[in-house]
Amino acid sequence: MRQEDPVATSAETHAMRRAVALSARALGATAPNPVVGCVILDAAGQVAGEGWHQRAGGPHAEVHALLAAGERARGGTALVTLEPCNHTGRTGPCAKALIEAGVARVVFAVADPSPTASGGAQTLRAAGIDVSEGLLAEEAETVNAAWLTSVRKSRPFVRWKYAATLDGRIAAADGTSRWITSPEARADVHRLRAEADAVVVGSGTLTADNPHLAVRGIDGATQPLRVVVDTRARTTAGARVLDDAAPTLIAVGKDADTSHLRGVDVVRLPYAPEGRGVDVRALLAELLARGVRAVLLEGGPTLAGAFVAAGSVDIVTAYLAPTLLGAGPAVLEGAGITTLTQALRLDVTAVDRIGPDLRVSAVPAAATAVPSTSQES
Amino acid sequence: MRQEDPVATSAETHAMRRAVALSARALGATAPNPVVGCVILDAAGQVAGEGWHQRAGGPHAEVHALLAAGERARGGTALVTLEPCNHTGRTGPCAKALIEAGVARVVFAVADPSPTASGGAQTLRAAGIDVSEGLLAEEAETVNAAWLTSVRKSRPFVRWKYAATLDGRIAAADGTSRWITSPEARADVHRLRAEADAVVVGSGTLTADNPHLAVRGIDGATQPLRVVVDTRARTTAGARVLDDAAPTLIAVGKDADTSHLRGVDVVRLPYAPEGRGVDVRALLAELLARGVRAVLLEGGPTLAGAFVAAGSVDIVTAYLAPTLLGAGPAVLEGAGITTLTQALRLDVTAVDRIGPDLRVSAVPAAATAVPSTSQES
Repeated sequence: MRQEDPVATSAETHAMRRAVALSARALGATAPNPVVGCVILDAAGQVAGEGWHQRAGGPHAEVHALLAAGERARGGTALVTLEPCNHTGRTGPCAKALIEAGVARVVFAVADPSPTASGGAQTLRAAGIDVSEGLLAEEAETVNAAWLTSVRKSRPFVRWKYAATLDGRIAAADGTSRWITSPEARADVHRLRAEADAVVVGSGTLTADNPHLAVRGIDGATQPLRVVVDTRARTTAGARVLDDAAPTLIAVGKDADTSHLRGVDVVRLPYAPEGRGVDVRALLAELLARGVRAVLLEGGPTLAGAFVAAGSVDIVTAYLAPTLLGAGPAVLEGAGITTLTQALRLDVTAVDRIGPDLRVSAVPAAATAVPSTSQES
Repeated sequence: MRQEDPVATSAETHAMRRAVALSARALGATAPNPVVGCVILDAAGQVAGEGWHQRAGGPHAEVHALLAAGERARGGTALVTLEPCNHTGRTGPCAKALIEAGVARVVFAVADPSPTASGGAQTLRAAGIDVSEGLLAEEAETVNAAWLTSVRKSRPFVRWKYAATLDGRIAAADGTSRWITSPEARADVHRLRAEADAVVVGSGTLTADNPHLAVRGIDGATQPLRVVVDTRARTTAGARVLDDAAPTLIAVGKDADTSHLRGVDVVRLPYAPEGRGVDVRALLAELLARGVRAVLLEGGPTLAGAFVAAGSVDIVTAYLAPTLLGAGPAVLEGAGITTLTQALRLDVTAVDRIGPDLRVSAVPAAATAVPSTSQES
């Protein structure tokens, strides 16, 4: 997918880097929209204005930046992380706004793959504007990986996060698991939740840990949708996940008895073809329909196995504590892999120390994008 | 244990760094002796000679270096990674050799903790030589960690090495395990074998993999002793480990029937107090008596569990392939840990990319030394 960086001045490259950084500020807050950053250079190549798309329904990045630049945009250059949109959504097409502001040149990093919004480059060129594509495409693609993946695959981008010992256990033999990883690693998970649109757990995790799943400790974070995959509707009305800190969805099997969950947002889903719980693809379709673009899958092993078996994991973020247990449940179960040649092979994209722990990021081998989060570069 | 680096000239520091590097060349070849490097500076501070202890029975590092320096040693300074020995072993005391060569100053990195060899510093000082201790002590200690640990703990230093998937499996559900890790990682294991004096596996690994365990692909490597912990003497006469590529020891339970192992080096050991195989401490005592200072424990999970339960792991070297299986045997079993507070906590000392895989090195938390291998610094 990646294009060679086109000819660009150093001022343009610098401005695009800034635009990419600006776009990352809104990760987790823009669904169903992408994150986008924009920097306007005036005719002399000086920064005249900048902006980023902050939330769905709010102005697009270009509009923010043009507003800041004012008349200095005339004859200038717009650096945008994503191809300017061409459609009239809630905020009007950005291509039109750029034309009316009189910019002479538009450089964007990544083409818009969505059928409704693309075509902006063509419209700009038809208006006589010099248009260039591909500058810092890889960086922009990385920040926007969740949204781009959701458009290309017609399902939300899925990050599977787990915390385990170095020997791959998520709890001790007696079930104790608080805490395997460090406070630093757990804080990092809250950042992942803030960057996600939905956090998904299985009923096993709900029963074992009664987790809360909301974002804590991050100022101004947008709370993700909390999703419990609960085939038999075992969630009790008193579960912490049902408080009002964030919205919550309980995904149950199509014929589950949900009479004890009155007033709770429940969706009924078909069973998986293998008959081990609800169908993962149906779940993701439901979440996409609800505007979710980035899913943080927090396990446990059985649900993760169903996602892996369905080919629905786009990146793995493993927090590994330097601890050995030698007993207790494993990270992943039931992925449908019986022999080594069937193993899901990944490419490691980053290894970071998080306090005393390791964070390993890996994507399925030969993936088209190398997704990351704002702090993984 | 570590001392602050003493006052040293930059030429001395540089020479000590060289001495540490020289010492590392002989890792795996000097047992039961330590690895030692030595650089002699002449009275003007120029390098006059260097050497390292190459094999047990051969000259000590100081003797090699003094021979190379000749008369230039007089009035000069000797930089040695370990306190010069004071006893008359196979090669005569080095303290005496340094005195006779007329060096004016001796700087050593780490004091010799062994009762038979220590006292060299005192002898040198009594002869009027200026003696300084502790320069680059941490670096020297790291390279010599196996030998120093064996002296301090009166048992061989144990490195537990394993190769696993990111989800902690050492084989798929059907037992296939060749190969989970990359050729680069497997080549790195041969380096670890070459640096060890003994390679230890359990009979489970022998039965499953019929491994060879000798060093391949490293010119001039000293072959380690191959050790099979085989409580019930299940090793067959045709096992690859019994060829003549390297010496082999079969450690069996005290009353095992070994009639099918005629001509094979067999040692009978008491059973573990918990009754799950031979006693790990007795095994290590036997290996120490045979001159083994550095053990590379290559598993499998049950044997590793016995070592962990016995508190007999000094460093963990984990090769993690970015692969997911979701089924198959785990890295570690039966370590006697039932709840999270009993977990064996480690400190990560290094994380390296080895081809597509990760190599994680970790030592039990609050360990006195931070062991490493020659390429992990």
